[in-house]
Amino acid sequence: MPLGENFYRGRVAAIQAALAEESLAGILLLDAPNVIYASGFSHIASERPIGCYVPQAGAPVLFVPLLELENAAACWIGDVRSYFEYPGELHPVAWMLHEIGAGRIAIDSLSLGLAQRLETDCLPCDLVNRLRWVKQPEEIAQIEKAARYADFCLESVLGGAGDIIRGGGTELDILRACLGDTLAKMQVEIGEQFRLRGAAVVGTVHSGPRAALPHGSPMARLPQIGEPLIAGIGASVAGYHAESGATFAVGDADDELMRALQTADACRLAATAALQVGASCESVNQAALDVLRRGGYGDFIRHRIGHGMGIEGHESPWLAPGDNTILQENMVFSNEPGIYRPGRDGIRLIDSMIVREGGAFVPSRFLSAHPPESRVLAL
Amino acid sequence: MPLGENFYRGRVAAIQAALAEESLAGILLLDAPNVIYASGFSHIASERPIGCYVPQAGAPVLFVPLLELENAAACWIGDVRSYFEYPGELHPVAWMLHEIGAGRIAIDSLSLGLAQRLETDCLPCDLVNRLRWVKQPEEIAQIEKAARYADFCLESVLGGAGDIIRGGGTELDILRACLGDTLAKMQVEIGEQFRLRGAAVVGTVHSGPRAALPHGSPMARLPQIGEPLIAGIGASVAGYHAESGATFAVGDADDELMRALQTADACRLAATAALQVGASCESVNQAALDVLRRGGYGDFIRHRIGHGMGIEGHESPWLAPGDNTILQENMVFSNEPGIYRPGRDGIRLIDSMIVREGGAFVPSRFLSAHPPESRVLAL
Repeated sequence: MPLGENFYRGRVAAIQAALAEESLAGILLLDAPNVIYASGFSHIASERPIGCYVPQAGAPVLFVPLLELENAAACWIGDVRSYFEYPGELHPVAWMLHEIGAGRIAIDSLSLGLAQRLETDCLPCDLVNRLRWVKQPEEIAQIEKAARYADFCLESVLGGAGDIIRGGGTELDILRACLGDTLAKMQVEIGEQFRLRGAAVVGTVHSGPRAALPHGSPMARLPQIGEPLIAGIGASVAGYHAESGATFAVGDADDELMRALQTADACRLAATAALQVGASCESVNQAALDVLRRGGYGDFIRHRIGHGMGIEGHESPWLAPGDNTILQENMVFSNEPGIYRPGRDGIRLIDSMIVREGGAFVPSRFLSAHPPESRVLAL
Repeated sequence: MPLGENFYRGRVAAIQAALAEESLAGILLLDAPNVIYASGFSHIASERPIGCYVPQAGAPVLFVPLLELENAAACWIGDVRSYFEYPGELHPVAWMLHEIGAGRIAIDSLSLGLAQRLETDCLPCDLVNRLRWVKQPEEIAQIEKAARYADFCLESVLGGAGDIIRGGGTELDILRACLGDTLAKMQVEIGEQFRLRGAAVVGTVHSGPRAALPHGSPMARLPQIGEPLIAGIGASVAGYHAESGATFAVGDADDELMRALQTADACRLAATAALQVGASCESVNQAALDVLRRGGYGDFIRHRIGHGMGIEGHESPWLAPGDNTILQENMVFSNEPGIYRPGRDGIRLIDSMIVREGGAFVPSRFLSAHPPESRVLAL
C-alpha cells in the first residue's frame, strides 16, 4: 500500500460520514483513483472492472478479477471477492451490484450504455472525488517529496543542457539526461523497487517554434541560440503527483524574450497570491491570466492557469473558467503560466502549490530559487 | 497521421454507411481510440474532451481544446473547432452537442452522471467499436510489424538473459536490456522520431514464485536455476499493437516444468486451431483452456485465452466467457495460455493471431521458431 493502513481506515471513515449525511446505503467505487484512495490497492485501470464498495456502516469490500487476487489480498481490506474474467456471462459490475444487495447505492462512475444495459438505478455521485480535494498530511508529505524530485530534474537541465547543446545534442538528449539523473536519485533514495512504490518522473523538452505547441512531443531537434527551451517535469512518489517546469533561454535572451519570461513569472506570483482560503478556483485563474493580458500577451494564452493534483496528475478542482469551487486548506494545484506564439516560440512555467491559511505554500522551489534572468543555459 | 489520409476517408465512409443502416443522423465520438480511428488525430485522452462528429452525410468535424488546435489542424479533417478550456462555463460536451445541432445523434461514450447533467437524449452506440473489430490491410500491416518487434525483443532475452543472470543481473536488468535493444532497432528502422510515429515497446519479466502473479511488476530479483522466467512484450507501430511472450527455463527445466511448458504450448496451438471464421469468441477460449484442464492444470487457470488488439492494446472482442461475437476475417487477437501456481511458479506464452479464411495467421514467430525444449537460458 502506498500509505499506511491507518490512512485508508481514516478515508473509509470519512466516506462513511459523508454517506450518512447524504442518507446513502453505500457507494460502489469503480474509478481507479477512488478505489486506491479508499483501499490502497494500487492498480492500473483496464477493461476488467475493479470495485471497492464502502457501506455506510461496516467493512468495505474489494471486488477484483481472479488474476489480481493475490495482489488485492495484500491490501488491508479483509473481504476480497473475485470474478473469473471480463466480459463473463454476467457483467462484472452486475455481479458486484448483486453481491452488494439492495439499498440506495451511489456509484462514482458508470457509462450511460452500461447503466441502460444493467437497468440499474444507482445514483451517480462524486462524493469521493470531492473528499480527495483536501489532502491529508500523509498525502501532502508525498506531494512535497514529488515536487523536490521534479525540481531536481530541472536543476539537472539548468546544470547540464548547455553542455549537451554545445556537443550537438537534441531535445531528446536533454530529456533523457535529466530524467536519467532523477531516476538514479530515486533509485538510491527510495530503493531499487522505486517504481513498484509508485515513484516515477516524466517530462517534455521543447525548443524554438515548436515550444508554441502546448502539447507537443520532444524531438531530435538541436536548440538554437536565443531560443526559449521549455522543460516540463511531472514526478510522483507513492503514487502522488507534483509538477515543476521552467523555460530557459538557450545561450542568451533578447529583450522581448526576457520581457515575456518576466511577465510569465509575474503571472505565476499572481496565481500564488490569489490562492487564498475562501477564494473561488475560477478567480485564481482570472487573477493570474489578467497579468498576461495586461502584459500584452492575451492573444497567446492557450490554457487555464492550473489543475488539481494528487492520486491523479490532473484531477478536480480546476483553476479554470467554470469552476466555482471554494478553496480550502490543503487543496493542491499546479500553477502553469503559458505564453504560446505560433510560428515564433513558447514559454511555460510550472509550480505546485498548496492552499494554506495565510497564503499558499509552494513546495516547488526551482522557480523562486532561480529568477528569470538566471534561467539561461550557458553555451 | 499514423496511416494515410485515404484510410481515414474510408473509415468515415464505413461509419456513414453504418449510420444510414441504423437511421442515425450522426455519431459523436469521444473515446480516444474511436476518434483516432476516424480522424487519424493521435492524442492522449485527458479531462479535456476531444470529439469527432461523423454525420450520416457530409464532412466530419473535429472538436478540440484550444491547446490542441495546431496539432489537430495537421490532420486531414478541414473543420476543426476549438473551445478554451475544461471545465468552462459550458461543459465541452454540451458545447459539441450544441454545435452539432438537432437530430437523432448517437454517442460512443458518455458517463451516466454527465448524461443526466446535460439532459441529453443521445443514444449510446458501439457502432465504431464494432467497425474496429475487422482490421483493414493498412492496419494489419502495422500489427505485423509490431509483432516482429515484440519477437525481436524475445530473441534478445533468449540470446542475452543467460549472460545477464550469470553476471548477477536481475529481472529489471534483463528487461532493460531487451527493451533497449528493441528501441535501438526501432530508432534505426523507423527513425529518430519513432515515438512520435506511434512506435513503442513495453514489457515485463518475472521469475520464480512471483511468476505466479499474472499482474506483477519486474523487480530487482536474481532468477534462480531451474525456475521459469516469463517475458511478456507489447510492441506498437503507428499506434497499432501486438504482443509476444515466452516462458524460459533458467539454466534447466525439470520434468514437471517441461510438462507444464509443453501443455501451455498445446493450449496455444489449440487456440490457433479454433480461431476459424464463423466460430464464436467464447468457443476459442473454451477449446484452448480445455487443453490446460485436461493436462491437470485447471486449478491454475487465472484468465481468459486472449483479447482483441489494434489501436488499443486490449480491445473488444474478447476470447473469453460471455463473448459470443462471431469471428470474421481480419480480426486480431492475443493468444495467452497461462498456468499460475501460487507459491510455486507461473508460465505464460503470448502470440498475436489474425483470423483468416482457411485458418489463423500468426504474425508472432518466436514461439513457433523455438519449441519448448529450446526455450532455455543457458547459464
